[in-house]
Amino acid sequence: MYKLIKKDGKARRGEFTTVHGTVQTPAFMNVATAGAIKGGISSYDLKNLKCQVELCNTYHLHLRPGDTLIREMGGLHRFIGWAGPILTDSGGFQVFSLAQLRKIKEEGVTFQSHIDGRKIFMGPEESMRIQSNLGSTIAMAFDECVENPAPYEYSKKSCDRTERWLYRCKDEMTRLNALHDTINPNQMLFGINQGCVYEDLRVQHMESIVKLDLDGYAIGGLAVGEPAVDMYRIISTVEPYMPADKPRYLMGVGTPVNIIEAVSRGVDLFDCVMPSRNARHGHMFTFNGIVNIINAKYTNDERPIAEDCDCPVCKNHSRAYIRHLFKANEMLGMRLAVMHNLYFYNTLMERIREAIEEGTFEQFKERYVPILDKRCKD
Amino acid sequence: MYKLIKKDGKARRGEFTTVHGTVQTPAFMNVATAGAIKGGISSYDLKNLKCQVELCNTYHLHLRPGDTLIREMGGLHRFIGWAGPILTDSGGFQVFSLAQLRKIKEEGVTFQSHIDGRKIFMGPEESMRIQSNLGSTIAMAFDECVENPAPYEYSKKSCDRTERWLYRCKDEMTRLNALHDTINPNQMLFGINQGCVYEDLRVQHMESIVKLDLDGYAIGGLAVGEPAVDMYRIISTVEPYMPADKPRYLMGVGTPVNIIEAVSRGVDLFDCVMPSRNARHGHMFTFNGIVNIINAKYTNDERPIAEDCDCPVCKNHSRAYIRHLFKANEMLGMRLAVMHNLYFYNTLMERIREAIEEGTFEQFKERYVPILDKRCKD
Repeated sequence: MYKLIKKDGKARRGEFTTVHGTVQTPAFMNVATAGAIKGGISSYDLKNLKCQVELCNTYHLHLRPGDTLIREMGGLHRFIGWAGPILTDSGGFQVFSLAQLRKIKEEGVTFQSHIDGRKIFMGPEESMRIQSNLGSTIAMAFDECVENPAPYEYSKKSCDRTERWLYRCKDEMTRLNALHDTINPNQMLFGINQGCVYEDLRVQHMESIVKLDLDGYAIGGLAVGEPAVDMYRIISTVEPYMPADKPRYLMGVGTPVNIIEAVSRGVDLFDCVMPSRNARHGHMFTFNGIVNIINAKYTNDERPIAEDCDCPVCKNHSRAYIRHLFKANEMLGMRLAVMHNLYFYNTLMERIREAIEEGTFEQFKERYVPILDKRCKD
Repeated sequence: MYKLIKKDGKARRGEFTTVHGTVQTPAFMNVATAGAIKGGISSYDLKNLKCQVELCNTYHLHLRPGDTLIREMGGLHRFIGWAGPILTDSGGFQVFSLAQLRKIKEEGVTFQSHIDGRKIFMGPEESMRIQSNLGSTIAMAFDECVENPAPYEYSKKSCDRTERWLYRCKDEMTRLNALHDTINPNQMLFGINQGCVYEDLRVQHMESIVKLDLDGYAIGGLAVGEPAVDMYRIISTVEPYMPADKPRYLMGVGTPVNIIEAVSRGVDLFDCVMPSRNARHGHMFTFNGIVNIINAKYTNDERPIAEDCDCPVCKNHSRAYIRHLFKANEMLGMRLAVMHNLYFYNTLMERIREAIEEGTFEQFKERYVPILDKRCKD
């Protein structure tokens, strides 16, 4: 499934093959929370934005419109109009971050819907059944994402439970994939490494879950507020324990610089709401740094957001026009900004892949790390 | 400029030639108030929606981003990325409907901006200068749009003033078009017929303004709350006094049925916010009537909004998915709905043109008037 093509330092250039198509890695997964990218972007638009993989949220889709409806509609691919790979998260992260009044037991978690307060139970089996109904390409294991920082003892206890949950996830997925009327009989399962910022817990947990020989492994519980150096340290700590022949996914990361740093530590897959969320506030990413399009200096700027950008927005629209759209609260402003930012992220990954192929990733990193998260000077 | 190709009853199939392209009439102008269609639709999207003419609002663009900025950016066509014909209204309608604390004098109108309360003066010359800065294909004369109903005496006084304003508009436009650095030296001017619902005032005013031999004539002051029968009566009353060799524009109209009825009375051009505004509330137009996509019966409906529709939305998305997007407050829902509705309106005009060409417009009218404004049964 995962083929390593080239290594440059620890950075990996690979190909990850799924029933819905092959993903060139490192890759960024474009987040379509409720089955649509925020900012009015459809799956058909994504085809023009170099998107390889969509990521949808199990928790949101379970609550609305409901995974049984999506199953009835032929699965998520058909429902949202995307034929390529889709990864669904397990719902765990949202249960622990969005839902109210949650109660964790060995069986799973009882929580209240953030939409209507309705009481819902989700455990490993429920998460797998929902994801099976959605018929995504890759399902994520149901885990507990502990707060950061969390006490050592609690983190350890939680890790152990997450490991027991992983066995239940695998068993349930095996059963579901074998059903005659399952949407995607080849649904893959990724395990998730936890352990807060404790290196021994992280390593121990990774060693345990690798034994299950899953389709891929994720590092979870990072990018939840801890300093970037802690995140980089944890990645460097667990990476040697991740199988070399499986894709590695750093969940919820991150800024362009975070991504470059993580690639240099051996990570292959990423997802983050940042390109779309920041776009909606007028923050546009470019290879010269961040353009805040609302800034008055762009009032009469006829140039595109980025002069070296081939995206459908930069080819057609000026900074002056996009700034006007934001000032006039025109929805089109957000749409154009999100399109540009997703194109930027997907192009960033493309350039990362090229640099690894050419053996120049270190130079690439040295060139872009100092500027990509800073404000564009021009 | 206007060439009558075929008449069927009073319905006219024509070609209206401008420096920015030829418009096949009857035609519906797509409303891009502040230089963008509401719902996140760009000028580039409009090319796939059979749009022939964009309409932008002088009042809105004067306030934000300012017509001098748009002039500096090379004019409205370049600013918004639309090479085809653009009609700008005069600002008069918005001054009388949106602005606060207005004071009308012979010179023009003083009013407060609805955005920041700033005091602004606009008269015929100001309106022409703003529209000249925008560089639209067609400028509308600055008029007073009186309330409906308005007293006879006030309507008469207002008509006379609107006529005097028209002479000033024409003089100022002639001067502006002759300037060496004008954006569009071929900018056209349409006059606007007023007179409330008083037939004698309407006819008298139309006879007066026809003498100026303008590029086209509009019927204004209708569709502002009066019963449809009054609107149809006024159109039928003034139409015989409109020049046959000029395009005729019914401002701010309307529902699909209003448009068919007006075409049958000899009108060529229309504009209305209805397709985009209704779309944003989930009301979708089809040739079988109106689909309210939020209706629970569409929850698991895999069909497109309209099965006979070739629009980019109906070719790709199901009712179930679009309904889900509306329920989940995803911006994409509005965008898809607006795209479909604009495509519907532009297709309606195409079918009207075909019916006139084939001499079957009366049958077309009989078939569609009873159903288009009603709820779709299926």
